[in-house]
Amino acid sequence: MDSHGKTHQKEQQDDVISPKPVTLSKYSNRVELKTLLERSDGGARLAGKRVVIGGWVKSSRAVKKDSPPPPPPPPSSVTVPPPSTSKSNVSCTEIIQSKMSIFRKLFDVLSGGGKTTYPIFDKPEVTGGQKATSPPEYIIYFLISDGSSVCSLQVVVDSTMSSIPATQLMSLGTCIVAEGVLRQPLAASTKHVIELEAEKLLHVGTVDPEKYPLSKKQLPLHLLRDFSHFRPRTTTVGSVTRVHSALTLASHTFFQSNGFQYVQVPVITTTGFGEMFRVTTLSGDETDVKEEKKHDGISIDTVKAAIKEKSRLIDQLKRSDSNREAVVAAVHDLKKTTDLAAELEKKQKPKAVTLIKPDVSKDFFGCDTYLTVSGRLHLESYASALGKVYTFGPRFRADKIDNARHLAEMWNVEAEIAFSELDGAMDCADEFFKFLCKYLLETRHEDMKFISKRVDKTVTTRLGTTASNSLLRFSYTEAITFLQKATTRTFETKPKWGVALTEEHLSYLTDEICKGAVIIIHSYPKEVKPFYTRLNDDKKTVAAFDLVVPKVGVVISGCQNEERFEILDARIKELGSISREKYEWYLDLRRHGTVKHSGISLRMEHMLLFATGLPDIKDAVPFPRSWGKANN
Amino acid sequence: MDSHGKTHQKEQQDDVISPKPVTLSKYSNRVELKTLLERSDGGARLAGKRVVIGGWVKSSRAVKKDSPPPPPPPPSSVTVPPPSTSKSNVSCTEIIQSKMSIFRKLFDVLSGGGKTTYPIFDKPEVTGGQKATSPPEYIIYFLISDGSSVCSLQVVVDSTMSSIPATQLMSLGTCIVAEGVLRQPLAASTKHVIELEAEKLLHVGTVDPEKYPLSKKQLPLHLLRDFSHFRPRTTTVGSVTRVHSALTLASHTFFQSNGFQYVQVPVITTTGFGEMFRVTTLSGDETDVKEEKKHDGISIDTVKAAIKEKSRLIDQLKRSDSNREAVVAAVHDLKKTTDLAAELEKKQKPKAVTLIKPDVSKDFFGCDTYLTVSGRLHLESYASALGKVYTFGPRFRADKIDNARHLAEMWNVEAEIAFSELDGAMDCADEFFKFLCKYLLETRHEDMKFISKRVDKTVTTRLGTTASNSLLRFSYTEAITFLQKATTRTFETKPKWGVALTEEHLSYLTDEICKGAVIIIHSYPKEVKPFYTRLNDDKKTVAAFDLVVPKVGVVISGCQNEERFEILDARIKELGSISREKYEWYLDLRRHGTVKHSGISLRMEHMLLFATGLPDIKDAVPFPRSWGKANN
Repeated sequence: MDSHGKTHQKEQQDDVISPKPVTLSKYSNRVELKTLLERSDGGARLAGKRVVIGGWVKSSRAVKKDSPPPPPPPPSSVTVPPPSTSKSNVSCTEIIQSKMSIFRKLFDVLSGGGKTTYPIFDKPEVTGGQKATSPPEYIIYFLISDGSSVCSLQVVVDSTMSSIPATQLMSLGTCIVAEGVLRQPLAASTKHVIELEAEKLLHVGTVDPEKYPLSKKQLPLHLLRDFSHFRPRTTTVGSVTRVHSALTLASHTFFQSNGFQYVQVPVITTTGFGEMFRVTTLSGDETDVKEEKKHDGISIDTVKAAIKEKSRLIDQLKRSDSNREAVVAAVHDLKKTTDLAAELEKKQKPKAVTLIKPDVSKDFFGCDTYLTVSGRLHLESYASALGKVYTFGPRFRADKIDNARHLAEMWNVEAEIAFSELDGAMDCADEFFKFLCKYLLETRHEDMKFISKRVDKTVTTRLGTTASNSLLRFSYTEAITFLQKATTRTFETKPKWGVALTEEHLSYLTDEICKGAVIIIHSYPKEVKPFYTRLNDDKKTVAAFDLVVPKVGVVISGCQNEERFEILDARIKELGSISREKYEWYLDLRRHGTVKHSGISLRMEHMLLFATGLPDIKDAVPFPRSWGKANN
Repeated sequence: MDSHGKTHQKEQQDDVISPKPVTLSKYSNRVELKTLLERSDGGARLAGKRVVIGGWVKSSRAVKKDSPPPPPPPPSSVTVPPPSTSKSNVSCTEIIQSKMSIFRKLFDVLSGGGKTTYPIFDKPEVTGGQKATSPPEYIIYFLISDGSSVCSLQVVVDSTMSSIPATQLMSLGTCIVAEGVLRQPLAASTKHVIELEAEKLLHVGTVDPEKYPLSKKQLPLHLLRDFSHFRPRTTTVGSVTRVHSALTLASHTFFQSNGFQYVQVPVITTTGFGEMFRVTTLSGDETDVKEEKKHDGISIDTVKAAIKEKSRLIDQLKRSDSNREAVVAAVHDLKKTTDLAAELEKKQKPKAVTLIKPDVSKDFFGCDTYLTVSGRLHLESYASALGKVYTFGPRFRADKIDNARHLAEMWNVEAEIAFSELDGAMDCADEFFKFLCKYLLETRHEDMKFISKRVDKTVTTRLGTTASNSLLRFSYTEAITFLQKATTRTFETKPKWGVALTEEHLSYLTDEICKGAVIIIHSYPKEVKPFYTRLNDDKKTVAAFDLVVPKVGVVISGCQNEERFEILDARIKELGSISREKYEWYLDLRRHGTVKHSGISLRMEHMLLFATGLPDIKDAVPFPRSWGKANN
């Protein structure tokens, strides 16, 4: 639970009395910078200790050995240029100036929008034409980060330690493993408490600055995402990853400490709803296709069948968890098909040809299989035996949507609770959500401080307020009333009882009315919620809720599940005959030993957006998968 | 870490002084049986407390209200039949006897092979022909389980509490929520410490015994797996699930407490090796196919191209992590194609037709995408920034293999460690593995006791020995020497330096030579290991290892990764030009700021087999996915 936070505080207290010894990082022969720098004294009393450290160059600066030492760079991840004095420094600054807009743009992104900071390299003199018999000697001041912490360590290196030219050593992103002695910085003006005087360079992994995207190319935001394999080297993405990591452990800790069992639900499924990805081993070659007689061109019958199917899908979409864009896209698609039908009506008698289609009986599983949309159905079968269960895994949507809140692959934490009704699920969502906020504040103090400095100033306050207060709860009907009262505001979708709340509605309710997270209890018309949601006594609405937060929208959704066989059976029948067969196993859970139960689903990526204030989900996830984009 | 175990011990100590209060299960209005039964006094001092409990019927027995009370069933999950006395009991026992072989078979499986126990229903008298004006009244003795623990609670119910006929109430699998008072059992002979005298039945979820697979049908083992949604209701699968759950939390705890950050790696990828599942949204209809000119029938050119491609795939398979069966299957497949080519050589001039193939540019991502085989490559990019990272997610293999050790979908815990060489990875694997063993013994005491009683007697000793001793480590060369010395044993694949160790070899080394887990350091020929494994100085072997356990085989594999650009580049080139392009991003990590690093991969399902002694992976995983099988 909060043991990490408490341990951290305790360590800091102990540290005041006698400095914690420096310990090697497990499984790697070096000391993690976190253990040097995240101390109550900033590491001051470690002066004189010999250590090996490793990391990547965040910034660097060199002075000729015969020059007076410059003031070392301040302890941020980027350095501010000092007043130039020497000729070489001037020309270097000129080079840098010409690239300033690129750097500024890049670093605005990477450091979260700071306007006045950018990287500067005081490069050793390399121009001039004349060849020196021995290369000039420099003292290089590096800021090195190893990702264990927000902080960087200043490492002082004599250029003669390496045969690699100083210019190359100094490139942003170079990997350096150095052995040396910790000391208090020589220059009095520095903000560093401690620095490493390197005695040996044990490893150098160079960078080709011409090709390294983080140092050179002028990349707009969306192209920077094409280099997702380099992004964690930026301080912001490093912090976001550590926050993500904490949220993951916190989720497991919360559920297990409350008596839930983790259940591994399948990723490949035979059921689902909405737009799904198909999983197949068929390659389309002659061994795994079957022939179908078909008309040349598109026949009117095919189009009519498509219209019927697409209409059914739209109904299904509306009934499922799909968001509004998906429904709109589907309706738009249907419109195009209807237009095509009208056009075809004018033409006549197409001739027959042979169409070759995949033969699913020859596929790996011998049936149609998809990537899972939700693990809750499978989880229910374990809740109907073990009582309280949860899972954490990837969920997939093939909706052709590309926006800042949607990805094709996202991870959910899902839980199912037997012997529980809607209130139980709401309490669980409420406490889980607050636990996550509290956990971050307690265990990711440095990262949250950095994120609130660079990404979103309100983020720590927001987490603190959320963690320590009861969440507001109101009904869907009340929500509609609030929206209707908003006379100064016009909504694209007019709020009236019966319509699904849109992103715009949710944003108004959380950002402007409640100014914080709320739980909206959906006594919703049953048609707009998934088929497994429990029907209320009025036979028109269902028992569901959403936990909605400002700017992001729904973070947790939950519902009481329909435990009554007849009602569930009727709702599944509405999905069509194929679905009915696929859901037989699910109906079995109500046929035999049915129990009242409810469940929740947390969207991890949306939680991360809430916790960090990042505006786009593609920057929050290590390797985002979206419509038309899968890079590696 | 072991906080759970210590808490458990502490609670038991406190419990001796004053009984722990009964607390409601969070988010559900009932008390978990674990909190009643897993106490140092077995719950004795809770007598007189009023509680609500819920669960599913494990066994039941009824006596007519005017009969003397029978001895209640013993505290196991199944009951032993008492000597029959009344006429109705005799006829009932006869019915049961006719079904005995079914029950025995079923329960042998579900309870892990116990030979002398089977469920018995002393059914209320329902035969006789004459209709009574009011139904006979019974006292029903239930054993109820709620999955929170191995233990079941005896619940005593008066049949008049419910309008549901006693016969139906008593069916195995019925869900019952009851309110009542805890008491010491009336009958002196019972082994129960405490039972619940029900005063109200708050909910009954009935079972149709004619259709409920766990109560009626004669199912062979492999068909029982078709009812994976009911399996957790058996005591053994319940215990295995709780063990699985503990292993999951333990994995996160181990890595996070050792300074690793969790990284969410993608499930949908563009790279991979061996047989993979394709992810697509193309349906094969006219909008997403392209036409290709092709010869009618199979042309000799197509077959020749196929032979070339298949040969390349075999090479690639050998180089990848694929197991031996996959290679054998691929070679067999190639043989068939070669035969076909010979046959076709005899025929002549096929005529041209149009073949319609999927147009990948119209697919969701606009390129070929697959389900991930391994997360380690993506993880490396984060290790090259954050130092120590891990992940836990599903991995997929489309090999057409169906055996007790292989599934199409399995979950791995993978870690990558920067600034680390082979030894670092081996230490990490060693400590992780032992941590898991220790964690289970400390936190899943009751489940491990049950599993060692019903599944594998040696399991707790095995875990204990493993957790407290250093793992043996020897080299591949030594392994070959051991195998060659085994003169009394003949192996299908003759052991000689250069061949991959087969399952048979590993089994001999662990089961017979070492009698325990070992780490085999593979100074392997580079051809039989994945391309990213680091080349040793001899330029012929690579730096890899496997942690192998008796009966199961490899549980953890690991290696030092190739950090040198030129060597990695050369090895990727051997994979062919298409692969080369896909791995550009991965090569980037060596182009810019490369670092020595190593990693490991634990197969969670295989760890679970080791920890439980279950012989078949399909019984260890909730919803197994295997060749030709995906049920829900």
